Amino acid sequence: MRSYGQYCSVAKALDVIGDRWNLLIVRELMLRGPSRYVDLLAGLPGIATNMLADRLRDLERDGVIYRQEAPPPVATTLFHLTERGEELKWVMIELARFRVGIPCSVSQRASSAIATCSLV
Amino acid sequence: MRSYGQYCSVAKALDVIGDRWNLLIVRELMLRGPSRYVDLLAGLPGIATNMLADRLRDLERDGVIYRQEAPPPVATTLFHLTERGEELKWVMIELARFRVGIPCSVSQRASSAIATCSLV
Repeated sequence: MRSYGQYCSVAKALDVIGDRWNLLIVRELMLRGPSRYVDLLAGLPGIATNMLADRLRDLERDGVIYRQEAPPPVATTLFHLTERGEELKWVMIELARFRVGIPCSVSQRASSAIATCSLV
Repeated sequence: MRSYGQYCSVAKALDVIGDRWNLLIVRELMLRGPSRYVDLLAGLPGIATNMLADRLRDLERDGVIYRQEAPPPVATTLFHLTERGEELKWVMIELARFRVGIPCSVSQRASSAIATCSLV
C-alpha cells in the first residue's frame, strides 16, 4: 500500500481502496456476502493468490473488511464487509454510472441510487 | 493500462480511471480548470514526469480529458476535462464521503451532494 501522502480526502480514500483489485474484492463481498478465500479467488480471475492475501490483509487493517473463523459446518475463515466497507457501495454506484454514461443531476441521483442499489 | 478483462461496469470504469494517479489528475483539473503540464506536475508531488505523460495520454484516449494548443498569450498545451470527465465529480464526492465517514441514506445524498459540489 503506497500512500499519496496528501491531506485531500480523495487521496486519503484512494490510499485505502485505490490499489489494484481492492474495489473488486469489495464488489465480490457485496454481491456474494461473507465469502471464503477460495470463493474470492474464483470470482477474481487474474489475481495472484499472494496478491489476494496481501489485499485482504490491507483491507482488514483499514477497517473495510473483517475475518471470522466460522464454526462447523462452515469450519473455515469467512471474510465480511464492515459497516464502513458497506459504505463503498456508493462509490461503486458512481463508478458504474460513469461507465454506463448516465448523465447526472442531483434530482436524478436520489431515484437512480434507489434503482441501482438493488443491483449492487 | 491493464484491463481487468471483466464485463462488470465497475471493473470497466476502473480500467479507465483505476490506475494509480488517474483520479488525482482528474481532481487537479476539476479544482484548477484547464491546466498546463507543469501545473499538473506541481499539484501532484511524487508523480514521475513520464508517468504523468503516460496517464494523460491514457485519459485522453479514453475520452476523460482533451488537450488544446492554446494561442498566445498562453502559447502552450492546456489539458481540459471532457464532459465525461466532469461526471467523475460524483465518484470523487463518494470517495471523500467514504474517507470522512459520513453515513449515507438516499435522502441525505441529495442534500449532501449539493453541499459537497461546492467543494469540488
